[in-house]
Parts: sequence; C-alpha cells; structure tokens
Amino acid sequence: MNAPVQINSALSVRDQFPAIRDWHYLDSAVSAQKPQAVIDAITKAYAQDYASVHRGIYQRSATMTEAYEAARTSAANLIGGEPSELVFTRGATEAINLVAQCLPKMGRRRVLLSALEHHSNIVPWQLAGFQVDVCPLTEDGRIDLDAAAAMISDQHQVVAFAHVSNVLGSILDAKRAAEIAHSVDAYLLLDGCQAVPRLPVDVAEIGCDFYAFSGHKLYGPTGIGALWGRSDLLDAMPPYQGGGAMIDKVTFEQTTYAPPPQRFEAGTPHIVGAIGLHAAVDWVRAIGTDALHAHESALVAECRSALAGIGGVTLYGPEDSAGIVSFNVDGVHPHDVGTILDDAGVAIRAGHHCAQPLMELLGVGATCRASFAAHSDSSDIKALVRGLQQVKRIFA
Amino acid sequence: MNAPVQINSALSVRDQFPAIRDWHYLDSAVSAQKPQAVIDAITKAYAQDYASVHRGIYQRSATMTEAYEAARTSAANLIGGEPSELVFTRGATEAINLVAQCLPKMGRRRVLLSALEHHSNIVPWQLAGFQVDVCPLTEDGRIDLDAAAAMISDQHQVVAFAHVSNVLGSILDAKRAAEIAHSVDAYLLLDGCQAVPRLPVDVAEIGCDFYAFSGHKLYGPTGIGALWGRSDLLDAMPPYQGGGAMIDKVTFEQTTYAPPPQRFEAGTPHIVGAIGLHAAVDWVRAIGTDALHAHESALVAECRSALAGIGGVTLYGPEDSAGIVSFNVDGVHPHDVGTILDDAGVAIRAGHHCAQPLMELLGVGATCRASFAAHSDSSDIKALVRGLQQVKRIFA
Repeated sequence: MNAPVQINSALSVRDQFPAIRDWHYLDSAVSAQKPQAVIDAITKAYAQDYASVHRGIYQRSATMTEAYEAARTSAANLIGGEPSELVFTRGATEAINLVAQCLPKMGRRRVLLSALEHHSNIVPWQLAGFQVDVCPLTEDGRIDLDAAAAMISDQHQVVAFAHVSNVLGSILDAKRAAEIAHSVDAYLLLDGCQAVPRLPVDVAEIGCDFYAFSGHKLYGPTGIGALWGRSDLLDAMPPYQGGGAMIDKVTFEQTTYAPPPQRFEAGTPHIVGAIGLHAAVDWVRAIGTDALHAHESALVAECRSALAGIGGVTLYGPEDSAGIVSFNVDGVHPHDVGTILDDAGVAIRAGHHCAQPLMELLGVGATCRASFAAHSDSSDIKALVRGLQQVKRIFA
Repeated sequence: MNAPVQINSALSVRDQFPAIRDWHYLDSAVSAQKPQAVIDAITKAYAQDYASVHRGIYQRSATMTEAYEAARTSAANLIGGEPSELVFTRGATEAINLVAQCLPKMGRRRVLLSALEHHSNIVPWQLAGFQVDVCPLTEDGRIDLDAAAAMISDQHQVVAFAHVSNVLGSILDAKRAAEIAHSVDAYLLLDGCQAVPRLPVDVAEIGCDFYAFSGHKLYGPTGIGALWGRSDLLDAMPPYQGGGAMIDKVTFEQTTYAPPPQRFEAGTPHIVGAIGLHAAVDWVRAIGTDALHAHESALVAECRSALAGIGGVTLYGPEDSAGIVSFNVDGVHPHDVGTILDDAGVAIRAGHHCAQPLMELLGVGATCRASFAAHSDSSDIKALVRGLQQVKRIFA
C-alpha cells in the first residue's frame, strides 16, 4: 500500500511544509505542521468544490458527500478498520468523551488508566462518573502491564491507555493490553493521538475495542478527529448529541436514530476537515508509517545521545521512544529553556503537557519536550543542541 | 462599525465567491459559500502562521493564541456579546446540546419549543431528558407568541426557539419571547443559525440567555460554531467534555476546572476554524447586517412574486421572510423539481430540511427551498423561474 516515496530524501519532504522554512519546529506532538498537499486539498474544497453533504439533491452535493465518505474510508483503513466503524469527531478528546459518556451503564463502572495518561484520557472518565484506578509505570517510563494484569478485576468496564505517551514517547504493548482487558471482559480503549502519526497501527491485529486519534497531529486540519469502535459496541451505544443527520424519524413524542456512524455525528459535519484529513492520510501512506517510525526512531536516538553529551541534562522516558524526547536542564526552569530556544529559532514545548499526574510522579512541575515529524532532520537536533549550550552559558 | 461596502454592487460581491461561477446557488441556508477573503485567511493560517494555541512558549504560538482569542472577540461582538461569554463549539448543533446537557438540574425539566424547530433544537432536549411542549404557529408560519404566553408555566426551565425558521424564513419577535420566558424565570435560548447571516443580532437588546450559531452558514469554515451564554449562567454550569485546556488542576482523585469559556472547550480547538470565522465576520460586517437583510428581503419579495406568477406553485411562510422561500410545485415531488433545476444550473434544497414535525404540520413530506445570500441577485431568480417552467413542461 505504501508508495515508494523515500523518507531519507528529507530535504524534499521538508520543502513540502511551507510554514517551517528557516524554523526548527520540534513541537509536532502538540500539533503537526501541514504539507502543501493538505493545504491545497482544503483550499480546493472551499474554492472549487464546496457544498454541504448528505442533503442536497444537486450533483455537487452528491460529489461532496462521496468525498466526505471517502475520507471516512481512508481514515478507517489507515488503522485497519472499516468505514462503518469510524465516527468523525472534533478531535481525540471528543472521541474519548463520546465513549465515556455513551458506554452502556452495565453495573461495572471502573476504568483502569495509567500514570502517564494525558488529561484527555483522565477527565472524561471522571466526568462520566467512573471510579479510576491507576496502573503504575516501569522504571523506564512504560505502562507496567504486569501491574495491570495484577490490578484488573471484573469490576473494570474499561481499560484506557495511551498507545504512545505524549510526554515520554513510550510505546505500549497494545496487544498484551487487549488480552489483559479481555481477560475480565473489559474493553480496551487506546488513545492513539501520538501513535497514528508515528507507527503502523492495526486495530484488528491489536484486538482493541476503541481507538481515538486526532487529525491535526496527523498533518491534517484542526477541528477533526476520529473514533474507531467495534461495530457491535457502536451499535449498542445510545446517541451522543442530538440534531440533524443522526436521526431516523423525529416527532415531538419520540425520535428514532440512524445506525452508526451517523448516529454519533449530529449536525453539519466538518466537511472540509474530513477532506483535509483524507489528504493527510494519503500523504502519510505515501511515505509509509514504517518509514516514518524508522525515521523518527533514528532521530530520537541521535537526539538523546546529543543531549546526554551536553551534560547537566536529565532525559525522561525509554531509549526507544517514538518521536518524543522529554528532558530538563538541571537548575533551569523549562519555560526559560523554551524562551531561549525560541530566540534561537527552535520551537519546543515546555510545561506539564496536559499530564499533571505524570509530572507529579516524575517529581517535576514541567519538562521540556522535543518532538519529531516527517520533516525533522539532524539540522533540527544540531540547532537544539546549540540552543541548549546557550541556555547553559546564560545560566552558568 | 459597518464599512462602506455597497451590497447593491452585487456583481463585485458575487465575484468574491470563487466556487459559484456560472452557478445559481440557492442553498445558502444549508451552508454558505465562502468569499475569497475567508479562503485566504484559512490558507494563510496553515501555510504561514500555523502553531497550536494556549500551550507553546515560542512566539508563533503566542501570536496564534492572540489570533484565536481575537476571533472569539469578533464572533461575540457580532451579536453584541462579550468574548468571555462566547464558547467555540463544532457548530450550532453542539452549542444547543451543550446547554441541554449542562444546565443545572433544578427540579424543573420542561422545555417549550415551537412547531417549526430544526431537529437540532428538538433532539438535544429529548436526549437530555426534558419534557417537551410545543408552541403552535400562526397561520402565516410564525411562532405564535400569544400561544407561548398562554402555555408558559413555572414548570419550564427553558424556552428554545429559532430566531429565523430554516424552512419558512419567519423572523421571531425575540424580545417578546425573552419577556415571556422571563415571566416565569425560564431561560430563552435562540437558535440563530439562519438569523446571524441575515439580520442584525444583539443579544443584550433581545435580553436572551443563550444564543447559538454556526460558522459555515455565516460564510465561514466548517466545523466551527458558537454558543453565547450569559456569564452568570455559564459560570454556574458544570464542565461539558473533559480534556486538556478546560482544567485548572488534574489529579486522579479530584480535578478542578477552568472558568468559562475555557471550561467548555476541551482539547485542541479548531484553531483555523476560528481564524476563518473571524475573516467571515469581518466580511459580513464590511457589508453590514442591515444591508444584508435589506438585500435578501428584496430578493424574497421578488422571488415570491415571480413564483406566484408561474401558477401551480404553493408558497409557504410569511411574506417578510428572511432570505428563505419554501414552495412546492403542485403534483410534482420536490426531489424531481430539484433534479430538473440541477440540470438547469440551479441548486435548491428539496426535502424535510431537518424539520420533520413542521413538514407534518404543513401536510407535506417535503418542500423545495430557495435561500439567498449576499451574492444572490435577480439572475438567480430568473434562472429558478426558467427551471420551474421546464418542470411544468415536463410534468404537464
């Protein structure tokens, strides 16, 4: 399926990103920059093809509906799923909220999370009234699945883990997590925000029950994401929001609902978001998720080694993290590091990364985080190292 | 505030819409086409300025955050509100769902709707467990506020009405609706999807409590809309979805939440959607909502008169409807009308318009609907009339 585009021709990939010329953008984990192909797809959708979907009887609306549904197929296929199992959402956050709110209340109402989860995989469960158990981490910052296997009980309705940690980059053994969840007939939901742009993902091979990811971290537009769910589970779930497009028949006395995925997509959808996401998926597949993973893994190794060589830099997370390196400069607040790097033309993130419980576990208020993407290369790492040397000079 | 752009220079306005050259687009009520200024703002945001908001400490992220918050201010000001009272949502549908789900349950749990509501202002209340009462319409298709005044009781927590009907174009006397709601201390929510692109709207002058509108019907991008709410009401409402950006402090034991509007915006927002919406609001203000209303009202009068002149055409809704004309051709199914018009280069909508209860009240399964926008002119009406004459020839 992967087209023969070579990721090692890094310059040409980089040149496809108009917004990062002369800029070392190492903040792709918060949001990816967009390749020209995605921007062009968005512009064309508004300037040439625009019409609403699922409603008009004129040709252009029918064509736009086909494009919207083709985007659904492409997003589903990227992670090994079927289009009938893929719900478009505002983002991964909404996808997780949807599951937390709509899972049938069957008596059990406990969820097993891990200590490294993003707030988007903690707060939705709290708001939906789940009792939360927290799986600890291994010493090198992975979700400790031995501990999960010991903690899981028939009180758990859901196990919800990050497929890749947004702070540490640690990759979950997702297949084993599915086995652990299924050992007590619990569901496994994976937060795939950081995984889908960085790894090959196949929900069928993993055997998970729900999978959430966002478009804007996958080189796509803002305002769109996806929830993949096993079709029997989606079928059993009640509606999420009410409105147009999700109904079968409306009367003031009683309303009946459309089957999934439409049941969960009330109102006019983010049509152009879906079309832009389709272009992003095509772009990622042309490079290949295997190639992306290899590319970013090599950069992580190079980066960790370079940062270790500076001295006075603490590295977090495992050696084989996926595209993400968290660190601190001893004695310097991450915000100061980030500000000095900004002056040097290097964008990193400094903060709690929407993972305050993990920060507490690490015993820090914040970390610096460099994250890579398809367009990243050694020049970015060299610029980061030069910037950190400047930090050390200033704070010496 | 309105710039001196003249709406009567219709050709130049029309030329600003690249997607409708040689096309008579009379379906703006389902979704508006986009002026070049909006498309350019979206393209620039992705190709030149892109960064995430509220998170990065580098300059570009700070600049993007300012742009996102400036969009909030512009959207709020367009309807006479304050930015602290404006929540960005996926669209108007989500805005209404948010209110229905988050209004504190104070004992009363009835909502007064009207017989002309869009499904997006019916189903959210049903899903949230409200008992629904239905205000009838006057003979010419307005919400009958005398009936509403007689029906309202201290059992009603909310009155929720369309400011402009998406099928009939009838304009609500919103100020009187607010007085009726407030006479029993109920809240007035207005579905402003069709009003904001067509009328001057001032929530302070109306005295309503919540106001919902969508971006894509206002010449803006898909995937973004807004909920304006009185600040004391938003303050009292619990969170809607959980995730990043809406929290104060997260622990596994207890999470505290940010104040409005952030409390209701979990996850990475539709950043570029907000920026595109800002451009759309600027574009609308440059023309002026008074001028837009006058322009569309003249077209409605011209259209109703022309359709009446054909013979065998039934018109629905009041004479002074806002930009929308619903009709049927006697003996011809609306879908057939729409298909023949499509062949003639005229796009209308034919169907139930997500208002099945109103269709039932009108005693029809569907209607045809022509809806106008800033770019509409007499040539569109002439093309519609020619197309309908062709319909009559075919079905004679």
